[in-house]
Amino acid sequence: MELGIIGLGKMGFNMAERLKLAGHKVVGFDFNKDATAKLTASGSVGVNSLADLVKNLSAPRAIWMMVPSGDPVDQTIANLEPLMQKGDTFIDGGNSNYKDTQRRHAAETAKGFHYVDCGTSGGVWGLKEGYSLMIGGDSEAVDRLNPIWEALAPAKDKGWGHVGPSGAGHFVKMVHNGIEYGMMQAYAEGFSILKAKTPLDLDLTQIAHIWQYGSVVRSWLLDLTAGALDKNPTLDGLEAWVPDSGEGRWTVTEAIDLNISAPVITESLIRRLRSREENNFTDRMISIMRGAFGGHEVKKLDN
Amino acid sequence: MELGIIGLGKMGFNMAERLKLAGHKVVGFDFNKDATAKLTASGSVGVNSLADLVKNLSAPRAIWMMVPSGDPVDQTIANLEPLMQKGDTFIDGGNSNYKDTQRRHAAETAKGFHYVDCGTSGGVWGLKEGYSLMIGGDSEAVDRLNPIWEALAPAKDKGWGHVGPSGAGHFVKMVHNGIEYGMMQAYAEGFSILKAKTPLDLDLTQIAHIWQYGSVVRSWLLDLTAGALDKNPTLDGLEAWVPDSGEGRWTVTEAIDLNISAPVITESLIRRLRSREENNFTDRMISIMRGAFGGHEVKKLDN
Amino acid sequence: MELGIIGLGKMGFNMAERLKLAGHKVVGFDFNKDATAKLTASGSVGVNSLADLVKNLSAPRAIWMMVPSGDPVDQTIANLEPLMQKGDTFIDGGNSNYKDTQRRHAAETAKGFHYVDCGTSGGVWGLKEGYSLMIGGDSEAVDRLNPIWEALAPAKDKGWGHVGPSGAGHFVKMVHNGIEYGMMQAYAEGFSILKAKTPLDLDLTQIAHIWQYGSVVRSWLLDLTAGALDKNPTLDGLEAWVPDSGEGRWTVTEAIDLNISAPVITESLIRRLRSREENNFTDRMISIMRGAFGGHEVKKLDN
Amino acid sequence: MELGIIGLGKMGFNMAERLKLAGHKVVGFDFNKDATAKLTASGSVGVNSLADLVKNLSAPRAIWMMVPSGDPVDQTIANLEPLMQKGDTFIDGGNSNYKDTQRRHAAETAKGFHYVDCGTSGGVWGLKEGYSLMIGGDSEAVDRLNPIWEALAPAKDKGWGHVGPSGAGHFVKMVHNGIEYGMMQAYAEGFSILKAKTPLDLDLTQIAHIWQYGSVVRSWLLDLTAGALDKNPTLDGLEAWVPDSGEGRWTVTEAIDLNISAPVITESLIRRLRSREENNFTDRMISIMRGAFGGHEVKKLDN
Repeated sequence: MELGIIGLGKMGFNMAERLKLAGHKVVGFDFNKDATAKLTASGSVGVNSLADLVKNLSAPRAIWMMVPSGDPVDQTIANLEPLMQKGDTFIDGGNSNYKDTQRRHAAETAKGFHYVDCGTSGGVWGLKEGYSLMIGGDSEAVDRLNPIWEALAPAKDKGWGHVGPSGAGHFVKMVHNGIEYGMMQAYAEGFSILKAKTPLDLDLTQIAHIWQYGSVVRSWLLDLTAGALDKNPTLDGLEAWVPDSGEGRWTVTEAIDLNISAPVITESLIRRLRSREENNFTDRMISIMRGAFGGHEVKKLDN
Repeated sequence: MELGIIGLGKMGFNMAERLKLAGHKVVGFDFNKDATAKLTASGSVGVNSLADLVKNLSAPRAIWMMVPSGDPVDQTIANLEPLMQKGDTFIDGGNSNYKDTQRRHAAETAKGFHYVDCGTSGGVWGLKEGYSLMIGGDSEAVDRLNPIWEALAPAKDKGWGHVGPSGAGHFVKMVHNGIEYGMMQAYAEGFSILKAKTPLDLDLTQIAHIWQYGSVVRSWLLDLTAGALDKNPTLDGLEAWVPDSGEGRWTVTEAIDLNISAPVITESLIRRLRSREENNFTDRMISIMRGAFGGHEVKKLDN
Repeated sequence: MELGIIGLGKMGFNMAERLKLAGHKVVGFDFNKDATAKLTASGSVGVNSLADLVKNLSAPRAIWMMVPSGDPVDQTIANLEPLMQKGDTFIDGGNSNYKDTQRRHAAETAKGFHYVDCGTSGGVWGLKEGYSLMIGGDSEAVDRLNPIWEALAPAKDKGWGHVGPSGAGHFVKMVHNGIEYGMMQAYAEGFSILKAKTPLDLDLTQIAHIWQYGSVVRSWLLDLTAGALDKNPTLDGLEAWVPDSGEGRWTVTEAIDLNISAPVITESLIRRLRSREENNFTDRMISIMRGAFGGHEVKKLDN
Repeated sequence: MELGIIGLGKMGFNMAERLKLAGHKVVGFDFNKDATAKLTASGSVGVNSLADLVKNLSAPRAIWMMVPSGDPVDQTIANLEPLMQKGDTFIDGGNSNYKDTQRRHAAETAKGFHYVDCGTSGGVWGLKEGYSLMIGGDSEAVDRLNPIWEALAPAKDKGWGHVGPSGAGHFVKMVHNGIEYGMMQAYAEGFSILKAKTPLDLDLTQIAHIWQYGSVVRSWLLDLTAGALDKNPTLDGLEAWVPDSGEGRWTVTEAIDLNISAPVITESLIRRLRSREENNFTDRMISIMRGAFGGHEVKKLDN
């Protein structure tokens, strides 16, 4: 079938490729003309305006937005609306907050459009290995897109599902990312302990590879970690700085709103925040307290 | 080659089977005569005394101890010593504390024996899928056992390695288990959040299966979790009670000794402790404090 | 000077008393007629309608709202507005979210009213010991009320201050409560460890009293805790159940929004959530995972 | 009565002074001759050998050791033993691990000496405000020293107590310090959040002073914090570096051994460890994982 894709970055472009390889017609737009040219060169249809995107698709259209969460999604919808027809479908495949999704679903449904949310996991490996798709929305809209899901997922019947009403897809993806934070922190802490045990002179790369087979902690993340350690076994030259992209903190807030205690996912986020706090104020406060009650040394910055 | 195995429980028996299938001669001892009879029936040699175990192996012998950590290991060594000859090898394949292992290695080496430690992961699935083996000890002793490692591991060259001197195998296995605690807690928290979001009526089993393919959080643990949810999707009737077997708490203590901050592994252990605290005293203390400063209700147990 | 007070509960009534003792005229309203009668009996003016409240105060009026946060504040403002005159002042002395406060300040200012926020700490002890007051709002409005602050605080020049623009008072009070959560959890954990060390047979009440004098951990909370342990030294019969009233969770969310890592305040909240989760789902998930990979016992609830 | 003191540092010297002011005879030893000269100048007896220390005390002697925990205590005992007589008493007033204390108590008791442990809190303020004393040991030995406890404590009947058998004093002091870690972290996090809320331009010093009176979080630590902020309101020039002296980590380990979940005390320790990890390895591990699965930027150190 036909699919429009808006946003041909790391994720969007590869998804277009995977759909094309499965025999679907993809029309792709991006503000970056190199990206659309590359899409055209690869055998799909790259266009440089939303109007052209819509024109190149037959109704009822399905347009997949793969743009940063927040305002860009609202802006894209606003720009598309006048070009689209009732019965067309918006798909938000990015990492939107599920509450925004539910708001947009209500608004677009009222205008006669369909609105589907798809939490999309797989990163830069999705082209080759397929994407894990967590889909929310009305059944009519979701079901009509089955060929798309089946092509993007790792297999026709694996790695995708309609998980619930509007917002459910993004909610499940949000939690997925929260779990991802916790797993990454657990592995990273373990490797730090191994590295710190200097008398044993352990080889982290060797250990990562051993664990890939037969161990309880084997996983795709561990496979990638072993590969990354092959290239940089000491992590020399890297900065201890970890961003977070929104879904981790939404998971933490949501857990609190639901009265669910989620200490490990929360702590994983907190450590990312900590990685970005320079000359940590909390530690300095503790330092002056120790100085005040016990006369302990308050360390000063070197000049 | 030949291997003696002491301890034919869930792990030991399956290891014997996997070795036998690879063409090795296994002589197995257990206090449980049913287990040794079963081993014999399966084509290996089950014996009912350590003397018989030693007699049935040619020197230099290698004897794998698969017994609970702590005193049982010391006791087994003490019972075996008079029966063995210089040049024979003890292998501790259980979850011993690496400090005990280093102590035993020093003592047995001084007496002319070899002492190898092997952290063994794979659980009840090892017979079929192979075991991940993290091996510590002197190269002479470890290398001589290569056929054993190659047979137990998932493949001749995968999933096993000599990671360092005595204790290194158990140290790495200890950290492996610490990571395992963190991963389990991360998944479990995520599923709790999904379940608590009642308006979306999410199907945890479906989601676990979706994530198995193409997602960033795919792992062997997730595969098993999906399978377990197939059998009991609601977890009704289960108790919220999680034991810990030693390696998690050793990892936490070791991290502190090494001055490494490992909050997620630590918190995962703490939550297991919490699961076993009945009518939590800490919470009751907070309750009386709230009553004392703010006149807030102090809840009483129902009679 | 004159002050209207709406809400004569545990906090509001005592504040009225303290103001009266300092020579101020207090007019108090509550839906509970017993409370207003009691106020009148005590020498202040209890009234049973907002109209009477306003009538009994001379312009420019100052009316202190001591009502639950959220809708009750908005409702109270809406009901008061038609009765009040330009130049009158609303004071929100409750635990409102500072964002609501800033919204209300903007709305009321636009209508010609003043709007002051006052974070009020001191609990049921404030009548006797005075209240700690963290005040936000425009200087004109705040300064005019100096006699009120001086009367409510522990002393004319102690325990109160104009900390910033609108919302600042409630923001500071929010963080105050976050700290309070952390302190309570720290004490409670310590007492739990003492109690668990059964071979030493420690007397928690005795220890709390020792720490009250000369120790680094002495505090008002500890004084109250010692007093509470005097009355119930074992905490027998109490339920391990701890509510949270909003400000703790706002502090946690705010810290994340500000990219500040606040693990201890956060964990203190998480433990309160945990205290209210029955037959914890997270623990049950971990239990089935352990069963799945290691064949470990999955505990069932007793029937 | 008479008391020998070994170790005239910040704590020991002030304790000698406080005892002298209460009318007791103090004989003090230190390796630092300036300290002993200063003690003599102040009206007590400073000596430069343990032999002189013992000679200047009448039997049965009581000798208070105020030396670093660990080997220095064992060494001091070994040096004193040949000089002392049966019936003399050792007092360990430092921060020894209670397990060491119990071992020493058993050894010294077997040799006919008394051995008392005294957890001592109060820091550099003890001379003026008195020390909080948590005393463990046999009643005969402890009771005989009542005049000493009464003089050191904030008042004859306040701030000290015989809390249990040998080790109990140091155990209670250990937990006291664990609580102290948690309280400090809670305050410090709160002030960090206040500081980060830049639009409100909050004055941390003002707020600390407000909270000193009437608030739920008032405490001696807060008093000291307010004073420290008076001197350095921005903490400019200080390093975010926090040592830990042993008792925090013992509390954490002990909680685990007792199967008590103590997340806040534990996290407070972990944050101190974190403050001393340079270019955190855990964060760098997470960074390469993010790069590996999502193509996210892996930040490099500036040259």
